[in-house]
Amino acid sequence: MIVVLQPHCTPEQQEAVLQRIREAGLVPHVSQGVMRTVVGVIGDDRTKEQLRTMLEAMDGVERVVKVLQPYKLVSREFQPHTTVVPVGNVRIGGPEVVVIAGPCSVESRDQILQVAREVQAAGAVMLRGGAFKPRTSPYSFQGLEEEGLRLLDEARQATGLPVVTEVLDARQLDVVLRHADMVQIGARNMQNYTLLREVGRARCPVLLKRGPAATLEETLLAAEYILSEGNPYVVLCERGLRSFDNHTRFLLDISAVPVLQRLSHLPVLVDPSQAAGKRQWVPPLARAAVAAGADGLLVEVHPDPERALSDGPQQLRPDQFAQLMHELRRVAQAVGRSVATHPVAAR
Amino acid sequence: MIVVLQPHCTPEQQEAVLQRIREAGLVPHVSQGVMRTVVGVIGDDRTKEQLRTMLEAMDGVERVVKVLQPYKLVSREFQPHTTVVPVGNVRIGGPEVVVIAGPCSVESRDQILQVAREVQAAGAVMLRGGAFKPRTSPYSFQGLEEEGLRLLDEARQATGLPVVTEVLDARQLDVVLRHADMVQIGARNMQNYTLLREVGRARCPVLLKRGPAATLEETLLAAEYILSEGNPYVVLCERGLRSFDNHTRFLLDISAVPVLQRLSHLPVLVDPSQAAGKRQWVPPLARAAVAAGADGLLVEVHPDPERALSDGPQQLRPDQFAQLMHELRRVAQAVGRSVATHPVAAR
Amino acid sequence: MIVVLQPHCTPEQQEAVLQRIREAGLVPHVSQGVMRTVVGVIGDDRTKEQLRTMLEAMDGVERVVKVLQPYKLVSREFQPHTTVVPVGNVRIGGPEVVVIAGPCSVESRDQILQVAREVQAAGAVMLRGGAFKPRTSPYSFQGLEEEGLRLLDEARQATGLPVVTEVLDARQLDVVLRHADMVQIGARNMQNYTLLREVGRARCPVLLKRGPAATLEETLLAAEYILSEGNPYVVLCERGLRSFDNHTRFLLDISAVPVLQRLSHLPVLVDPSQAAGKRQWVPPLARAAVAAGADGLLVEVHPDPERALSDGPQQLRPDQFAQLMHELRRVAQAVGRSVATHPVAAR
Amino acid sequence: MIVVLQPHCTPEQQEAVLQRIREAGLVPHVSQGVMRTVVGVIGDDRTKEQLRTMLEAMDGVERVVKVLQPYKLVSREFQPHTTVVPVGNVRIGGPEVVVIAGPCSVESRDQILQVAREVQAAGAVMLRGGAFKPRTSPYSFQGLEEEGLRLLDEARQATGLPVVTEVLDARQLDVVLRHADMVQIGARNMQNYTLLREVGRARCPVLLKRGPAATLEETLLAAEYILSEGNPYVVLCERGLRSFDNHTRFLLDISAVPVLQRLSHLPVLVDPSQAAGKRQWVPPLARAAVAAGADGLLVEVHPDPERALSDGPQQLRPDQFAQLMHELRRVAQAVGRSVATHPVAAR
Repeated sequence: MIVVLQPHCTPEQQEAVLQRIREAGLVPHVSQGVMRTVVGVIGDDRTKEQLRTMLEAMDGVERVVKVLQPYKLVSREFQPHTTVVPVGNVRIGGPEVVVIAGPCSVESRDQILQVAREVQAAGAVMLRGGAFKPRTSPYSFQGLEEEGLRLLDEARQATGLPVVTEVLDARQLDVVLRHADMVQIGARNMQNYTLLREVGRARCPVLLKRGPAATLEETLLAAEYILSEGNPYVVLCERGLRSFDNHTRFLLDISAVPVLQRLSHLPVLVDPSQAAGKRQWVPPLARAAVAAGADGLLVEVHPDPERALSDGPQQLRPDQFAQLMHELRRVAQAVGRSVATHPVAAR
Repeated sequence: MIVVLQPHCTPEQQEAVLQRIREAGLVPHVSQGVMRTVVGVIGDDRTKEQLRTMLEAMDGVERVVKVLQPYKLVSREFQPHTTVVPVGNVRIGGPEVVVIAGPCSVESRDQILQVAREVQAAGAVMLRGGAFKPRTSPYSFQGLEEEGLRLLDEARQATGLPVVTEVLDARQLDVVLRHADMVQIGARNMQNYTLLREVGRARCPVLLKRGPAATLEETLLAAEYILSEGNPYVVLCERGLRSFDNHTRFLLDISAVPVLQRLSHLPVLVDPSQAAGKRQWVPPLARAAVAAGADGLLVEVHPDPERALSDGPQQLRPDQFAQLMHELRRVAQAVGRSVATHPVAAR
Repeated sequence: MIVVLQPHCTPEQQEAVLQRIREAGLVPHVSQGVMRTVVGVIGDDRTKEQLRTMLEAMDGVERVVKVLQPYKLVSREFQPHTTVVPVGNVRIGGPEVVVIAGPCSVESRDQILQVAREVQAAGAVMLRGGAFKPRTSPYSFQGLEEEGLRLLDEARQATGLPVVTEVLDARQLDVVLRHADMVQIGARNMQNYTLLREVGRARCPVLLKRGPAATLEETLLAAEYILSEGNPYVVLCERGLRSFDNHTRFLLDISAVPVLQRLSHLPVLVDPSQAAGKRQWVPPLARAAVAAGADGLLVEVHPDPERALSDGPQQLRPDQFAQLMHELRRVAQAVGRSVATHPVAAR
Repeated sequence: MIVVLQPHCTPEQQEAVLQRIREAGLVPHVSQGVMRTVVGVIGDDRTKEQLRTMLEAMDGVERVVKVLQPYKLVSREFQPHTTVVPVGNVRIGGPEVVVIAGPCSVESRDQILQVAREVQAAGAVMLRGGAFKPRTSPYSFQGLEEEGLRLLDEARQATGLPVVTEVLDARQLDVVLRHADMVQIGARNMQNYTLLREVGRARCPVLLKRGPAATLEETLLAAEYILSEGNPYVVLCERGLRSFDNHTRFLLDISAVPVLQRLSHLPVLVDPSQAAGKRQWVPPLARAAVAAGADGLLVEVHPDPERALSDGPQQLRPDQFAQLMHELRRVAQAVGRSVATHPVAAR
């Protein structure tokens, strides 16, 4: 980091700054300019956020500039090759684009079995579906909870598709892991650090969604919580930011795909459904994501969106999803990749 | 709600919409315009979010407009008089402006006892202090946890000041409530609905902070979760939004104060410290909050910010806080209120 | 539009609302609900913004909801087929994806001639280059002005590529149109309505960039200014929004492409260079734009970005641009389109 | 500025960076760290934005960090004492809080004369009113233009109140200055640099409104354009930012008041009416602005808002304005200031 001193910083204040840097086991390097004096901090200060705020709180300090990224285990500087996260027989982060599909919520046995078979037929290699649902209103459908997990498990057995589902609370983690192959940390829980630590300790594959107002640095630090507990199997997911235009539900940050892939070795998925809010925008956003280099997609599909208990407007019908898969295969090929196919379906 | 049909909506599609409204126990009212047909929904649909998304997902529907607010128990339409939340001997939501002060984190016995006495001497009537800390980086100080709660309790006994502290996880709730008078749901957890339900069931006073990208409607729906579990003692708190300028840490939404007070009967506090990020901006933001009508403030104070283990740059020194209290008394008086004084101190 | 009355609206207030609607030549239609009374306004009120604000200012009115879009000439409802804008021998808005390339600023005769030839060789069909530059700082290079226009003209003659360049002020319009084939209204001037009217009257092809905090509705209303003066040749361009993450310069709103194409019959381009801010993010954003259905791209290319007088970091080198063109041809093909080729080059 | 080199920057690349710094007449100072090498630039580089982007475009450079603010003439570092801007007999930037009031638009002789007398009676010391109106829709009332200026002039003569009115285009500047005492650059034109230069050359008092997505740095650089042309009489005005919640029209950035006052010596006003969008939020925002230290306010007042040709919902009625003035006097006193009184009215 670099400490910029105020123009009227006294020698005593400057010395206190240097002293504090030395106390932290780092070496200060003073550079006396015409307009400002700056103090470079020599050493690996990536994990020394506390030193940064202490320095910033000192008299005579104008501001402190980070030079190094404050995350370490997730950074590509730390690990140059892209992590491949295995989920059942699926590999996320390899050359193939992984499409995960399924309903917003698990609503019934018929619904989840039907949609699982339909997304599999269309080419999805993993099944998604919410059992514990974080809903903005307490009066909305809150998910089938454990019953939903059991139905997901049944759909998994019927199709062979690995399952990802959201966990809202650390106390649900055990039961979720009995039924699911991968746990999702939703956007609203991206900074639920106790939950992040728990999934870190569980060492299960984790799908970590970026919060709607989270910087990329905050997103990577959330992933760092998981890795720092010993779990390397984290997949990042961009699903749209809060913005001011209401034609879509969230504003998909397509640039997050290449930027995260440059900063980190973790795979990056895109959820075009949450961002779109309306099914008509899902196909162009999905195509854009693959063209930008996303390692996969999370797409909401429902057999009867008009009867969906949550987020009907943004869920594709199975035939629309099949058409989208066709388009995605062409786009993936255009950017030198291919869409992953299910080992069984591929036979 | 009002359903706006697409220009080319067929009679069958329109009939299906009317039918769906009737199925929900509500009455459709068709209004045939020159350019669009709209269908008004007659009845109390405030808690029927699911109907809204189902209608929006139907063929022939252009969009659905909410007429009524989707929250009920927290709305001023439901309860016209402002809720007064009692916390120990303090009343939040009455004519007096309540100032809560203390360090960002509890760091040691000496620190919390010293700062508790100093903020009390300056006029604060409640003590704040973090024991479980949600930190962006896993490498930052994470709080003293249970030891921090015990120290807060000791500070409470030493001063008589009721204590508010953050809870990060439902499993911590019991122990927090053994030591604290009010629990804080932090901005990062505003949409942690399992936690909201638990504090709702605990029926303890709750300080609910608005998330940095939460709409006012989402904030009120978060509070609705708590009230719908039978706990009426919720205090809202604006602490700044994510924005694009980096001179402050967050962008304080001062208009949230009068708007929330109009929409809801719950008291509204402001946390100028989190928004400011630097102590020099805390006094003007604090004065503005009182002038805008806030029912109270949450101010971070540390005896030695340069040694603070978290957020030193935004914490006031005790003498700065005493000066601010002096200013706040004048502003409160100017808007026809007064700053609450501690019963003991007032003797 | 629909007028939602306050719960305690008096009969006199309601009658005044109905009267005001009738005065405007429209028909009110009252719908009495359980919780609210709403008044539908029957008739074409798209251009009656003034009536809307007057109604909203009346006692007894809670709010007014727009049902119809406030723009008309630019809407796809008004004109179903996509407008094709001819610029010299190029057609924007047809089946082919149009790539416009060139430097941020015209800097010298050698620079512009060299880059014009290189982007032409790589497959661009139009040349861009700034002569009048809107710069954030008064101390930055402000463009070669008229000399820049003459150099652009020379490059056009040398290559046959039609030229687009920005106009900052109505008084420059004549001279710009003597040298350029299309004028650009930059993002900072999107709501410079006197300038919009002037280019409307000039009836020249116009490239209208969306402002960094403009809603899509505001963007379309800006275009409506131009069309309402009799100029149908407007091309919209998304170039990124202001946001809170600083890894890119602006946040490219990729969803604006399909949404604008649905709302309006005007062609939609994307400028990935302005959004990216760094050249390494330009190729993924450009590919995403074509995959999302953009009608073309505006790409900054400079023969020596390290010596560029403006925005060097985001300008591609010619060989990088040639590689990008190769990628774009594949993506365009994957989505059923092709990249436009220059008539001369195609021979 | 400080140049952070990439981890694998070659000696040749580093030398090229140093060379480029020397060419610009500045001195490089290399600091070799463990993880990164950084190059400090010694000298006054505030106006060398071009050098910054050139360095950032060079191979081997990771990023460039600004140490000094890129503006100079407007900075408090350059001029420590606050500028007092004289407008007729009013002084903006002195100890008194200046309240400017009047209608959004000048609509008729009767309207402007009536409202001018009413705001004067309530204590406003300057009159505002739009003659050239920037309207989002081409179908909205665009102002009385020159006739509006003449009516403003008449109101000024009738009351003695100095007048501020907006200028949209450099060609209107002469006629505006014949009738007005101060010209307003509206938020939409904050980065209309040709207009900024022209009002800079005109050396008239200028009210410069911050754009709805402008950073404080961009706002100050816009003011720098005016000062750099020799006009020191610039007053800044915060009027709200674009944000995601729709309860107010814009999000008032109250922290902009103290931050701008710290960064710059120019006076800072607040326009609560534009930010509020509804008259009921104007008083709390106005009080907050004065409590935060604003040097004045711009308040919209209309004798009959329900008949206003623009922005009726946000305009106060004269009696509401008189009540607000009463409140503002109390708040100003509480923060050690007073509300300016008209020399005539004060007799």
